[in-house]
Amino acid sequence: VSTRKITPLSGFPEFLPGDRLVELQVIDALRTRFELHGFSSVETRAVEPVERLTDKGEDADNEIYALSRLTASDEHDEARLGLHFDLTVPFARYVLENAGKLTFPFRRYQIQKAWRGERPQDGRYREFCQADIDVVAAGELPLHYESELPLVVMDALAELPLPRYAIHTSNRKIAEGFYAGLGLTDVVGVLRIVDKLDKIGPDGVRARLLDAGATPAQADACLALAEIRTADASFVDAVRSLGVSNETLEEGLRELAAVVTTCARARPGTLVADLRIARGLDYYTGTVYEILLSDYPDYPAIGSGGRYDRLASDGKTSYPGIGLSVGVTRLVAKLLAEGLIAISRPTPTCVVVAVSDEDARADALALAARLRARGIATEVSPTAAKFGRQIRYADRRGIPYVWFAGAGSDGRDQVKDIRSGDQVEADADTWRPPDADLLPRLVPGLGPTEPTTT
Amino acid sequence: VSTRKITPLSGFPEFLPGDRLVELQVIDALRTRFELHGFSSVETRAVEPVERLTDKGEDADNEIYALSRLTASDEHDEARLGLHFDLTVPFARYVLENAGKLTFPFRRYQIQKAWRGERPQDGRYREFCQADIDVVAAGELPLHYESELPLVVMDALAELPLPRYAIHTSNRKIAEGFYAGLGLTDVVGVLRIVDKLDKIGPDGVRARLLDAGATPAQADACLALAEIRTADASFVDAVRSLGVSNETLEEGLRELAAVVTTCARARPGTLVADLRIARGLDYYTGTVYEILLSDYPDYPAIGSGGRYDRLASDGKTSYPGIGLSVGVTRLVAKLLAEGLIAISRPTPTCVVVAVSDEDARADALALAARLRARGIATEVSPTAAKFGRQIRYADRRGIPYVWFAGAGSDGRDQVKDIRSGDQVEADADTWRPPDADLLPRLVPGLGPTEPTTT
Repeated sequence: VSTRKITPLSGFPEFLPGDRLVELQVIDALRTRFELHGFSSVETRAVEPVERLTDKGEDADNEIYALSRLTASDEHDEARLGLHFDLTVPFARYVLENAGKLTFPFRRYQIQKAWRGERPQDGRYREFCQADIDVVAAGELPLHYESELPLVVMDALAELPLPRYAIHTSNRKIAEGFYAGLGLTDVVGVLRIVDKLDKIGPDGVRARLLDAGATPAQADACLALAEIRTADASFVDAVRSLGVSNETLEEGLRELAAVVTTCARARPGTLVADLRIARGLDYYTGTVYEILLSDYPDYPAIGSGGRYDRLASDGKTSYPGIGLSVGVTRLVAKLLAEGLIAISRPTPTCVVVAVSDEDARADALALAARLRARGIATEVSPTAAKFGRQIRYADRRGIPYVWFAGAGSDGRDQVKDIRSGDQVEADADTWRPPDADLLPRLVPGLGPTEPTTT
Repeated sequence: VSTRKITPLSGFPEFLPGDRLVELQVIDALRTRFELHGFSSVETRAVEPVERLTDKGEDADNEIYALSRLTASDEHDEARLGLHFDLTVPFARYVLENAGKLTFPFRRYQIQKAWRGERPQDGRYREFCQADIDVVAAGELPLHYESELPLVVMDALAELPLPRYAIHTSNRKIAEGFYAGLGLTDVVGVLRIVDKLDKIGPDGVRARLLDAGATPAQADACLALAEIRTADASFVDAVRSLGVSNETLEEGLRELAAVVTTCARARPGTLVADLRIARGLDYYTGTVYEILLSDYPDYPAIGSGGRYDRLASDGKTSYPGIGLSVGVTRLVAKLLAEGLIAISRPTPTCVVVAVSDEDARADALALAARLRARGIATEVSPTAAKFGRQIRYADRRGIPYVWFAGAGSDGRDQVKDIRSGDQVEADADTWRPPDADLLPRLVPGLGPTEPTTT
């Protein structure tokens, strides 16, 4: 094995340590905000029985990775398993499985990998990390969560150096009620066609709608609906002006207006009503969201979610939920590629303790422990090479300080800031680096490192 | 899907939110200590080409989960992929793939899931989380890391309320040199038989060694070697008294004596030389470790590792490494089952802001934001039910405080500690809970919750 050629696997991104530190700090920032909002961490297993994963969306089936034992003898005893393709389906199953032990409404966050065997392309990965928040109720789920969840995500994203973004929001009931009011019967079919607006354009959508049996007037009305986009509740009048009347439509308009109005009051301009948003996955039943980077219109959504009323039900009780998911891998990959974010140093280490000879290593380890006891990340030099080489070891890693035991007057220790070259006396029980040096920090990046193509 | 019967999958553990919080805090403690010791985070993809996973150990092949697309058309284009069964094999591949972009010796930690399709039993899971640290060099890897790594793990484990444990350590060269010195030729075969000592006992091992062609004297010598266990370097004399002489054996004795002596000086009594330790995986070439819970001798190792000199090589340069892995799932499951650990509350939330009527929700959200701005995890009551019900909502989750806006004199806010019933005036911009209430904390458990069987 050891000499086989190594090639990266397309769609399975891996970061070098510095970029991984960026990803980790993004995850930490999201997690910290989610916890401040009272969301509990849940982690579900990576696998589900295959039949639980299928039928969740048009394209889901052929994107599912199924598992098999390499040399299986007892496979007939076991349910066929597949890797989850999102965190909502496993979470709904977790809620059903543990309903008696959870308290509702249940607020949970989940930051985990998911897998989809789709064709890798810009922003689309086969393995990716998502950060989800969901609220699930037993029985009734109040509408106000449809405003609260995007506000939580806005709060979390405010911790990060993001370019401009917007949460594009619609409500399935608007499109479904509107299509039904128009006299179209295959509402889900129409929804799927209109969902392709970004990919195939208005003419493509129009042609497919006509193929599916819509009249030209119906197709035009569908397109007119999809073009409505407002940052306030004025979308309601815009929809009404299209002259379609339907009870489900009215319910959707009321619900979406409440979300838009509440969010506009709390964080003006970040959430927009965008009636082209449908979301491909079948399980959404009400409000749906897509988080888009405003300056990169061709980049896929960095987050999405919606309300699902029928995903989890045990026959007696149903557990309606609403969730929003941040695509961590997709977001971080873009921030890195555009050079919008970087890390102040690619290693946690703040101090390297120099070693004058191997006999002094035990003392160096003890000294390092004193620095660590006060939260200063410290390692001991790998070799007792010349001090110049030990300094170079630190320098190549971006480690700011090298510690020399007994190098000062009367055998006091000294610490060198290898950036400035300043070397001063220091005591391992009291010395502290400046705050900016204590831990690696997210810093602005240096601009694009590769061509931004789509 | 929604009404199908849900049953847990054997070997794929999932925690309820409170237990998950325990696991998360264990992971956080390990991670924090690893970073303080200057280890960089790496995350590798979950999958490797199958041929990279095989041949890594006797039992590995039939434990590997292979992936396939559920409805694959282009599978012939793709390498066959399998889920990794540890974090060492993927890390070795990562090092080879990125050797030109890493600085050596490279210190990394990796906390991730791994998968093995073995038969689930006490402490053995099909999906489990591991926390690994490794140091990999380009060319030469100094011996001192074989002492440093167990010291780092001891330092990390000291953060946790563990029962007594020991790091059992040996060196492959001792057994291999000893067997060769005895005149046994299939050294690896003998190693594998002796490795089953715990499972089949001395008589079983003796019988198998005889079957494999050993003389009774050779078999007895192998068993005598495996019985040597000392907390200091006295194992060297114990081995010599068996009268076998071999150069590799001497090298192993020297190396292990250095590890035992260094660790005994820094943390007396925690690392023991235990010559029965072999580790099944073929890639180890020198020092090997197993971390065992002393009071639960039948429970499998909660950690393991060793030195691997030949796992990563690109033909020109070899990248010898040494690593230690903590079995997070195995450890946490045991701590929970024995009731040795618990969490002070099962949710991050510290305060619930009560809502007098739905029109007051926006104000309640704004108030919650003020508390969060000072690091106090806060959620807003899900409904404007009677205050008694809102207090019960908090109580059922173990949330200590409920906030009532404008309930005090002159419209000041009040906060109620629902455990004591005390309700006092408070200002959202200055109030702080006692430190013990700010965040969920690990606390001692209440003793075993289920029978401890093996």
